[in-house]
Amino acid sequence: MRKAIYPGSFDPITFGHQDIIERSSLLFDELIVGVLNNRAKNPLFSVDERVSMLEELTKNIPNVTVDSFDGLLVDYMKSSGATIIVRGLRAATDFEYELQIAQTNRVEYPKAETVFLTTNLKYSYLSSSVVREFAAYGGDISKFVPPEFVDRIYEKSKIKK
Amino acid sequence: MRKAIYPGSFDPITFGHQDIIERSSLLFDELIVGVLNNRAKNPLFSVDERVSMLEELTKNIPNVTVDSFDGLLVDYMKSSGATIIVRGLRAATDFEYELQIAQTNRVEYPKAETVFLTTNLKYSYLSSSVVREFAAYGGDISKFVPPEFVDRIYEKSKIKK
Amino acid sequence: MRKAIYPGSFDPITFGHQDIIERSSLLFDELIVGVLNNRAKNPLFSVDERVSMLEELTKNIPNVTVDSFDGLLVDYMKSSGATIIVRGLRAATDFEYELQIAQTNRVEYPKAETVFLTTNLKYSYLSSSVVREFAAYGGDISKFVPPEFVDRIYEKSKIKK
Amino acid sequence: MRKAIYPGSFDPITFGHQDIIERSSLLFDELIVGVLNNRAKNPLFSVDERVSMLEELTKNIPNVTVDSFDGLLVDYMKSSGATIIVRGLRAATDFEYELQIAQTNRVEYPKAETVFLTTNLKYSYLSSSVVREFAAYGGDISKFVPPEFVDRIYEKSKIKK
Amino acid sequence: MRKAIYPGSFDPITFGHQDIIERSSLLFDELIVGVLNNRAKNPLFSVDERVSMLEELTKNIPNVTVDSFDGLLVDYMKSSGATIIVRGLRAATDFEYELQIAQTNRVEYPKAETVFLTTNLKYSYLSSSVVREFAAYGGDISKFVPPEFVDRIYEKSKIKK
Amino acid sequence: MRKAIYPGSFDPITFGHQDIIERSSLLFDELIVGVLNNRAKNPLFSVDERVSMLEELTKNIPNVTVDSFDGLLVDYMKSSGATIIVRGLRAATDFEYELQIAQTNRVEYPKAETVFLTTNLKYSYLSSSVVREFAAYGGDISKFVPPEFVDRIYEKSKIKK
Repeated sequence: MRKAIYPGSFDPITFGHQDIIERSSLLFDELIVGVLNNRAKNPLFSVDERVSMLEELTKNIPNVTVDSFDGLLVDYMKSSGATIIVRGLRAATDFEYELQIAQTNRVEYPKAETVFLTTNLKYSYLSSSVVREFAAYGGDISKFVPPEFVDRIYEKSKIKK
Repeated sequence: MRKAIYPGSFDPITFGHQDIIERSSLLFDELIVGVLNNRAKNPLFSVDERVSMLEELTKNIPNVTVDSFDGLLVDYMKSSGATIIVRGLRAATDFEYELQIAQTNRVEYPKAETVFLTTNLKYSYLSSSVVREFAAYGGDISKFVPPEFVDRIYEKSKIKK
Repeated sequence: MRKAIYPGSFDPITFGHQDIIERSSLLFDELIVGVLNNRAKNPLFSVDERVSMLEELTKNIPNVTVDSFDGLLVDYMKSSGATIIVRGLRAATDFEYELQIAQTNRVEYPKAETVFLTTNLKYSYLSSSVVREFAAYGGDISKFVPPEFVDRIYEKSKIKK
Repeated sequence: MRKAIYPGSFDPITFGHQDIIERSSLLFDELIVGVLNNRAKNPLFSVDERVSMLEELTKNIPNVTVDSFDGLLVDYMKSSGATIIVRGLRAATDFEYELQIAQTNRVEYPKAETVFLTTNLKYSYLSSSVVREFAAYGGDISKFVPPEFVDRIYEKSKIKK
Repeated sequence: MRKAIYPGSFDPITFGHQDIIERSSLLFDELIVGVLNNRAKNPLFSVDERVSMLEELTKNIPNVTVDSFDGLLVDYMKSSGATIIVRGLRAATDFEYELQIAQTNRVEYPKAETVFLTTNLKYSYLSSSVVREFAAYGGDISKFVPPEFVDRIYEKSKIKK
Repeated sequence: MRKAIYPGSFDPITFGHQDIIERSSLLFDELIVGVLNNRAKNPLFSVDERVSMLEELTKNIPNVTVDSFDGLLVDYMKSSGATIIVRGLRAATDFEYELQIAQTNRVEYPKAETVFLTTNLKYSYLSSSVVREFAAYGGDISKFVPPEFVDRIYEKSKIKK
């Protein structure tokens, strides 16, 4: 059985993330969407809120589960049994950074294999930080995130200001 | 009538900015130099000071005006009637970042067209942050910024230390 | 009056070219679509055929004309009165090549200003060479080129084999 | 059942190819190594020779088969039932080219999913063309290709001169 | 006599730094490893600790000395007599940033020549920030840094949490 | 004694090459400018002509000699005693290609060290192929190549047409 993990901050989820989740759920037997609990940052949504939103989004994909983790990705992989890391690539500069991380993870955990999918053209400009910025200034985010999350994102954005 | 905006922080203005302003004033009927009021950063010059310095620099170019704005560039464009965004490109990594912003702006405001000019070779290494760093340590900034601003930049840099 | 030129091989025209032509016709008073008569290559369509196809495609855009030229772009610009070069950018590697050409053209003809537009996301993967390859093997090119040219491209592609 | 294809010229096979084959055979149920019969080039080894060499190399990996194909990759995928394309990435410039091909293949065959693996660090500089050049001048290729092919490559290289 | 400087933060030293030091000590008559005293950051090791660790590491290379400096690199070069700056390059995105710095340094100090070495393949993914992150979470750093520093890094990392 | 080689085609020499030769002659005890005798290409100048032109250009730099070589650079280095390869870098895409060659050369000849210099800003757009193209169409090449070679290049370019 091949178990993959798609790690990220997902703060908030975008159409780009949703697309990678759906496509990679077809490639592997089991897919964990892993929310990184990065304490250093000041997030829009708490880790628990992000886990719930992702569960809501993926409830109809039977081989997808959602989890959160602290610390090193390779340590979480060892404990969860995942050996494949899924990452989306938008641009060449993404690639160089991702390549360094992939090589480091393989040094620490030789079983870890990183596979890259290309972001869907339609979403290739999208990032969570763009969504946060547009939401903070009242811009239209309905083309960036799944409809069920639009209001929640606006609400959080106002609270933060 | 084609109205363009050249948005930026201009903290401080460099020869690179001056070159892009002069060249793009020849391409369009009207050019707004738009100082972004980015509250999150700790600027060297206030937005008002930067607007004055840019007005001083462009006072002999009749189709250039200077303004400042808050919030989303696309919102400012809608209210000011500008439909063209001018950006200078120095290097390939600049390009990928600028491309994402250009695509996002077009999604939010389909009339918005971003045009990129290449930075003059002589100034292709220059950035405001390099100027700030050199000024802070007493380095020679006379090759980086218009002569009328050299002393004001040194003065502000000392005050900040 | 600001006269621009959009130079290229257009062998064949793609949706990506059409998009750049339409968008840049809005930016400048006059736009020349300039077909480069590159003798060294073995083209699919003759220069005259490409000029006709481009004229057909742009017949409803009043400020666009189509022409062909030999030799150096800067020499054609001097004789035609165009001072602005329009180029579409798809990716960071495109950019570095285009930057070298833009800098060279400015050294040879200081009035020449190159402006870059970003390719529409939907067409960012497209190139004439991809179209030629797909057509040669009978692949579906209807998503790549304007409908009126699909059959002509298939026909030429068969003749070439 | 998930069937993947690793397409390429493999002229000749390098340690880099071998590494991608072994790693991707672990990711999917079945892997076809697909030798592209590119008639335009002047190959070192015939397609049949390359297929035999790859069969020899992969004879102990039960879920790997070797085949050759003409024409469009997407057409071969439709007929063979493969829906996943495996590609190795060495550098950022590779990525932009590969991205364009991946996007084009998805437009032509929406089921086609391209997954990228990072080349093993040790082989990140390697390419078939480097091997051909070193072999042609009698350079040491034993660090570039599997030992059983070293002599065959030298022999072919001499014949070609 | 040709005197070079290899400037950096070295917080902490990695195998990648060690490799560049050893290789560049062969290229020039004298090499200064220059620890930048960057007050703005929150370092793992103090500048004095980093200087000692580098002295320990290079004690058997007679033409290498270790020093620290404040302020502009070009000012330190003028006072120390070094005219050559050594930098390691890992990836294309590194290069663009380094190029801007090299050009700026040459404008400020025309005698300053920057030479770039390529990072050894084995260490091309490595950076001090990766080491700090792995150490903070108890990951295995023995493949990243010289053995004599492993324990000191773990110890500092714990103190910082 | 440190002996370096600056290999290239130099067909024709540009101001960019001249700049790299002068700067690297200051870095090492001896510099060989090595003209690659690449039989596959159709050159503008013969190898002997290029060697003479380079000798003329460097006659006042005592530690520079000019030579030509066939085959692998690493073989020429072994026979000539050079251990350092000098290369100029203009852009990030240059870098990735050069990096692969540098890594390959080190695998074949572990003593070989490649050092990269950044091309002078003024010449960063220049290449021999641009010069050949401009000369072929009668463009002004006096800003691209040393004055003593301008006429010889025009003459050769006419003969080639």
